[in-house]
Amino acid sequence: MAQEDVFKKIVSHCKEYGFVFPSSDIYDGLAAVYDYGQNGVELKNNIKQYWWQSMVLLHSNIVGIDASIFMHPTVWKASGHVDAFNDPLIDNRDSKKRYRADNLIEDQIGKYEEKIAKEVAKAAKKFGDAFDEAKFRETNPRVLENQKKRDDLHARYTEAMQGPDLEALKQIILDEGIVDPISGTTNWTDVRQFNLMFSTEVGASADATNKIYLRPETAQGIFVNFLNVQKTGRMKLPFGICQIGKAFRNEIVARQFVFRMREFEQMEMQFFCQPGTEMTWFDYWKKHRLAWHEALGMGDDNYRFHDHEKLAHYANAATDIEFHMPFGFKEVEGIHSRTNYDLSQHEKYSGRQVKYFDPERNENYTPFVVETSIGVDRMFLSVMCHSYTEEALENGSSRVVLKLPEPLAPVKCAVLPLVNKDGLPEKAQEIVNNLKFHFNTHMEAKDSIGKRYRRQDAIGTPFCVTVDGDTLKDNTVTLRYRDSMKQERVPVEKLREIIEDRVSITSLLKKIDID
Amino acid sequence: MAQEDVFKKIVSHCKEYGFVFPSSDIYDGLAAVYDYGQNGVELKNNIKQYWWQSMVLLHSNIVGIDASIFMHPTVWKASGHVDAFNDPLIDNRDSKKRYRADNLIEDQIGKYEEKIAKEVAKAAKKFGDAFDEAKFRETNPRVLENQKKRDDLHARYTEAMQGPDLEALKQIILDEGIVDPISGTTNWTDVRQFNLMFSTEVGASADATNKIYLRPETAQGIFVNFLNVQKTGRMKLPFGICQIGKAFRNEIVARQFVFRMREFEQMEMQFFCQPGTEMTWFDYWKKHRLAWHEALGMGDDNYRFHDHEKLAHYANAATDIEFHMPFGFKEVEGIHSRTNYDLSQHEKYSGRQVKYFDPERNENYTPFVVETSIGVDRMFLSVMCHSYTEEALENGSSRVVLKLPEPLAPVKCAVLPLVNKDGLPEKAQEIVNNLKFHFNTHMEAKDSIGKRYRRQDAIGTPFCVTVDGDTLKDNTVTLRYRDSMKQERVPVEKLREIIEDRVSITSLLKKIDID
Repeated sequence: MAQEDVFKKIVSHCKEYGFVFPSSDIYDGLAAVYDYGQNGVELKNNIKQYWWQSMVLLHSNIVGIDASIFMHPTVWKASGHVDAFNDPLIDNRDSKKRYRADNLIEDQIGKYEEKIAKEVAKAAKKFGDAFDEAKFRETNPRVLENQKKRDDLHARYTEAMQGPDLEALKQIILDEGIVDPISGTTNWTDVRQFNLMFSTEVGASADATNKIYLRPETAQGIFVNFLNVQKTGRMKLPFGICQIGKAFRNEIVARQFVFRMREFEQMEMQFFCQPGTEMTWFDYWKKHRLAWHEALGMGDDNYRFHDHEKLAHYANAATDIEFHMPFGFKEVEGIHSRTNYDLSQHEKYSGRQVKYFDPERNENYTPFVVETSIGVDRMFLSVMCHSYTEEALENGSSRVVLKLPEPLAPVKCAVLPLVNKDGLPEKAQEIVNNLKFHFNTHMEAKDSIGKRYRRQDAIGTPFCVTVDGDTLKDNTVTLRYRDSMKQERVPVEKLREIIEDRVSITSLLKKIDID
Repeated sequence: MAQEDVFKKIVSHCKEYGFVFPSSDIYDGLAAVYDYGQNGVELKNNIKQYWWQSMVLLHSNIVGIDASIFMHPTVWKASGHVDAFNDPLIDNRDSKKRYRADNLIEDQIGKYEEKIAKEVAKAAKKFGDAFDEAKFRETNPRVLENQKKRDDLHARYTEAMQGPDLEALKQIILDEGIVDPISGTTNWTDVRQFNLMFSTEVGASADATNKIYLRPETAQGIFVNFLNVQKTGRMKLPFGICQIGKAFRNEIVARQFVFRMREFEQMEMQFFCQPGTEMTWFDYWKKHRLAWHEALGMGDDNYRFHDHEKLAHYANAATDIEFHMPFGFKEVEGIHSRTNYDLSQHEKYSGRQVKYFDPERNENYTPFVVETSIGVDRMFLSVMCHSYTEEALENGSSRVVLKLPEPLAPVKCAVLPLVNKDGLPEKAQEIVNNLKFHFNTHMEAKDSIGKRYRRQDAIGTPFCVTVDGDTLKDNTVTLRYRDSMKQERVPVEKLREIIEDRVSITSLLKKIDID
């Protein structure tokens, strides 16, 4: 099955089984915004809990905060977001549609690629085994022409994006004759910068409109609280502050389901350290964050680091942890050595001294920062993509099973009376009433046992417990494992321990407590 | 100590000990917005977890969701917020300040009250024991005059607010000669309605500006997902959907610290039931929600129900759970029987059928809804207010101790080596390393043991474990209880069980599993 089709299936599975719904669905949705359903919210909460506990419980020098979404507008001046958090946009006067100029040009580069690929494919078909692709690419005039066009365009585009030079971007669009896919015309406006922050007005005074922004990242909430946390928590360097929360970006082109949304959730940790020690901590956090991912058991080969070729002006090292999604290796987490840039900027803009007093060195200085930043929704998507499995069964039928990491599963245990009578539902309810305090346990009594297994497979429930006539006699049940579908007979009083050992977040934390 | 002073102390304690900071503090804050610090976020998360688990784990027919803050704008047309979620505002042309007209008038009513109180106090002082207050109030001309003014004003005000009649409100302000406290003038503009929703623009097309709102309540996110959750979760009436999330209101007058903020967090549950059964469920949820509060052990006398005298047009019953704060009994939670109003409105505005198909009655109908809605920040404030205690100690000194419900405490256990040498810190660290997977455990080695106890008292840590020379010999420690300050010697291997039994959310859940 093509990877594109797999992704479509995952998206529709998310809706059909209560993981993710389009936002305001009965009103035909709101573009690039999604709601988490009854199973999605539990999976997402488990991811957040795993992250939070790995930071706060396992590291005595990391504490959390929860800063507000609304912040003082000068924060975003200091951080650079007011001036430099822009996309170059262009409108088509006929369709009235707005596009990212850089995306239009990238698509055009893609078209030259496609033309080359077509020529190569045609020739390959014609010449069969005798086809020498390298030679063909070097000699075929149509391929050479398109390669040149592609390379020239790429060079012009790269140069225009440096500034960025908005007029040069427009000229490229005109020179290439790029048309609006809707109107089919080249009736373009000028390119202009469009800030990605959402703004709103807070009404406290009558004369001045107080424009504030919805935070485009949670990190600044940590930087502006650095002094408060350090002083009230008596923190000594090195130490970290972590936070989970919503952030907002007015993306013009939102893509790939929950991968790029206008409203999304971040889990960020800023680790404050002595200047000069940041590369040690950068390496430390690369190792620890990768271990966090790998402990989920989704396949070590599905992760890779992608070091940034071009660093932001304030960074001295940056890498992404990428996960193998159906649409390629994609960033789920960034690890950045941000130097003392942010704290220094806040010192400058606030007029307050934002420094650490080092009691051992008896001096004040601005700490350096290593940041780990992970998108909750991307993490969620990577888990869903990895877990979605279609399996052929021995009896000729098939099943869709979500092979979720067990501690992340929305429902941990389903208790199923074999028949909905003869005292079995009551016995099942008794078992639920004992287990429910410790993990999410459901009872399901309707339909055949096979259908009920399929439904639990589809939402990724790792354990099914079947209550039958023998249960009433000897207090044992059939425990069925989701992935292997193996079944075994176990005493009711053992259930809690067997399941809890495998589904608790603690079991993950113990794997990664590597210091 | 006056209750007002107590409240001031609590607010400053919140900042000093890392519970709550003003938002963007180094930029002098952002009005009516706050950040939760390293201890506040843990306390708040524990409240949220207790609520979530009490809903989702204890009720097989309640599931959660997490809907987005951004919603389709028509949602707020359907809910009535676009047209009727307003405050009557008036500006003073000289000070350029904006006020709520209703607040100005209420303050004026308060001034007549004060005048009366002053006369009474003066007479009481003059006549001493012989003073007959009731008689004095009935006969003193100055008291009678002010009582009449107060009552007349109250009557006019109540009538003007019915509509509300904005011109009548302005006329009252002019007739009463109410002056701006800043400019001292009566140079008022007209009163006009000011919508409390924050709006922003989402930029996808060039011609139309797409105005959307930040949700002013989380409830509508549940209503618009009713069908999706019911169908994908195969839910049968009665059932509930619960949600925790941020909401935003552009309050002109924000008051009392985190009690009324522009950005706040709600925990809401909508319980969908058959028409005609709603009063049974209303009573059920009153009982259950009160039990949830009481299980925290903050004193049953500190809660009371306050039934709404005037119901919203769509409600057929409504009550508040009020908690005894330093500034009086205040609403922390609302329980409302909202009939089928919201679902019907969404059916009308979306053009989709938003009904439940009842398989037993074989018909479609719109369920009725009973809602429980609690403010996380208010709940947080009630816990802080109740827990803050100043105690005189036997040795003549005093302590400030936060007597937090143990399962809500940010740090559950502090491990304190008696001296910071001789292998005691290492032994303490070993104990921390065993406990940390199960609850938030800190080690603190600096300063005298007395100072360390005081610091843990101030953040409400229920258990302190002291490691001394004997610990190295017999593997026992001194366990100190926060509230009683009693100490006992216990084996290290018993610590986890002793503490976990008292600090786990499970211990609370078992208290309230009363069905």
